[in-house]
Amino acid sequence: MSHVTVLGLGSMGSALAGSFLSAGHQVTVWNRTAARAEPLVARGAAAAATAGEAVAAAPLVVACVLDYDALRTLLAGHEAALAGRTLVNLTSGSPEQARETAAWAAGHGIAYLDGAIMNTPPHIGAPGTMLLYSGDPAALARHHDTLAALGDPVDLGEDAGRAGLYDTALLGLMWATLGGWLHGVALAAADGVPATEFTPVANRWLSGAVAGFLSAYAPQTDARSYPGDDATLDVHLAAMQHLLHASRDRGVDTALPELFARQTERAIAAGHGADSYARLIEVIAK
Amino acid sequence: MSHVTVLGLGSMGSALAGSFLSAGHQVTVWNRTAARAEPLVARGAAAAATAGEAVAAAPLVVACVLDYDALRTLLAGHEAALAGRTLVNLTSGSPEQARETAAWAAGHGIAYLDGAIMNTPPHIGAPGTMLLYSGDPAALARHHDTLAALGDPVDLGEDAGRAGLYDTALLGLMWATLGGWLHGVALAAADGVPATEFTPVANRWLSGAVAGFLSAYAPQTDARSYPGDDATLDVHLAAMQHLLHASRDRGVDTALPELFARQTERAIAAGHGADSYARLIEVIAK
Ligand SMILES: NC(=O)c1ccc[n+]([C@@H]2O[C@H](COP(=O)([O-])OP(=O)(O)OC[C@H]3O[C@@H](n4cnc5c(N)ncnc54)[C@H](OP(=O)(O)O)[C@@H]3O)[C@@H](O)[C@H]2O)c1
Ligand SMILES: NC(=O)c1ccc[n+]([C@@H]2O[C@H](COP(=O)([O-])OP(=O)(O)OC[C@H]3O[C@@H](n4cnc5c(N)ncnc54)[C@H](OP(=O)(O)O)[C@@H]3O)[C@@H](O)[C@H]2O)c1
Repeated sequence: MSHVTVLGLGSMGSALAGSFLSAGHQVTVWNRTAARAEPLVARGAAAAATAGEAVAAAPLVVACVLDYDALRTLLAGHEAALAGRTLVNLTSGSPEQARETAAWAAGHGIAYLDGAIMNTPPHIGAPGTMLLYSGDPAALARHHDTLAALGDPVDLGEDAGRAGLYDTALLGLMWATLGGWLHGVALAAADGVPATEFTPVANRWLSGAVAGFLSAYAPQTDARSYPGDDATLDVHLAAMQHLLHASRDRGVDTALPELFARQTERAIAAGHGADSYARLIEVIAK
Repeated sequence: MSHVTVLGLGSMGSALAGSFLSAGHQVTVWNRTAARAEPLVARGAAAAATAGEAVAAAPLVVACVLDYDALRTLLAGHEAALAGRTLVNLTSGSPEQARETAAWAAGHGIAYLDGAIMNTPPHIGAPGTMLLYSGDPAALARHHDTLAALGDPVDLGEDAGRAGLYDTALLGLMWATLGGWLHGVALAAADGVPATEFTPVANRWLSGAVAGFLSAYAPQTDARSYPGDDATLDVHLAAMQHLLHASRDRGVDTALPELFARQTERAIAAGHGADSYARLIEVIAK
């Protein structure tokens, strides 16, 4: 078992510290508002009086605070104490902020990993939960098994900005999927189908055929070549008219399907009606 | 083994007939353009000279043509031949068209099932492929095992319109998910990450955490109560700003994230900032 320090005990930091405790690790905690340490101390954590004391307690320091400004404020003056240790930063931010922090860490002899937690506090430590890491590969190798207490560690390589980049991209995918699902739920509800009936089928569809489409289209976007062997943009556009029609009939807002229909029309107008849906990357990317 | 007739041998109808043959069934086929029957005849199918002859050949008649107009043209005059048989219509259309056809079938003593094929021709017969059915429950029970040769039959109950409704709703979910994925691919590409590297993580995210969110939010939309215990709309909106910023920095079109941000802002302005994302159903549905 290892010794790990957790800095920041908001709802997420508390869940992280709790999972380290559940996995049997020795845990030192610190939070700006000291009272938030109490439930963890009751479960066996040691509360450090200052951030400096917390940093000095363990070879692995996990930080999870509001944002990078809070992180900088909290770590300022503790560079020497952090030298030779591993800092795993699970605070959300941009790739640029992660890369700056990695450069700062390198300048002080701190092994740095940036991370993104792809779930909510109640899911920390659960089997399906994914945490993305990027940065110092040796640091990830060293602490992999300890970090696994939080969820499955996914290694995105040594560019510290990758975890933040994937985080942003995956959240965008989530909002889009939630938007499409809500639209489907609204259509189903109009015909008397409860969301609890529609959703298991929707989830099967996503993890089956839709996952297959993404896997098939990924090499197409990499190659910038979009053969429409399965379904062409012309066929998609025709089917989109049914969705628009069904939505209007049921009083469901059409902004989302209209956006996709417009993108598809733009690609068709440019002469790509026989291409696959992946062609739309050329419409949205520079 | 059963005897099944397939009407319509376009790319989808040919795949259907091929899968019935592969499963060992006796297959009779008919297509307006007769030449398209040849590859199936070479594999053991019987080609009927007329649609009427094809209908009279088997107790189970599967039709898959361009649209409902084609279906009506093709079946006109064959009502008596169809009486006492099961007609499974896998032609895409609206719930309303399916319900009209079910009423027509009932008027002629034809057992009617409407279906939607949730994949492309090369996937017909593959284990993960899902086909949705709605309509006469006895007909589905009778032919379930024969239809299973095409993919997994999902029973949506006796309203014949359900298969078409789910089809439209699931396609909308697919376009939304494809849109979110393409957006993520564009962000990743700008930082030198290939789509083939991003996509396996995206698929894990969809089938793990995102599926969990849909399952958690479905009872919320049914109950029209949206407690924000995991992540609130306020928190989502803050994270959306990062996505908008990252997209602008990388020259990726922001129409999609802007749409979600606008919907979220609207719900927050109405006083629901502490609610879950599922609250947005109230923004898009009547
Ligand atoms: N909650 C989630 O579902 C989730 C999921 C993925 C990622 N995250 C990320 O995890 C991080 C923390 O989120 P959370 O949900 O735990 O937020 P939270 O409950 O609001 O907690 C914020 C934490 O930041 C601390 N903090 C704020 N400003 C500070 C400063 N200037 N100096 C020192 N500490 C400061 C707070 O300390 P006080 O207690 O003293 O205020 C508290 O410990 C965020 O970056 C968030 O994006 C959260
Ligand atoms: N392909 C897919 O990925 C897919 C997926 C799910 C659902 N579907 C649905 O399956 C159905 C068929 O699609 P498909 O891909 O097979 O299309 P397709 O390759 O274009 O074939 C169209 C079929 O309809 C027939 N047809 C058209 N008008 C007709 C008429 N007036 N009378 C008789 N037959 C007529 C054609 O006969 P001729 O050969 O004589 O022209 C041909 O057999 C559509 O409703 C489609 O939405 C397709």
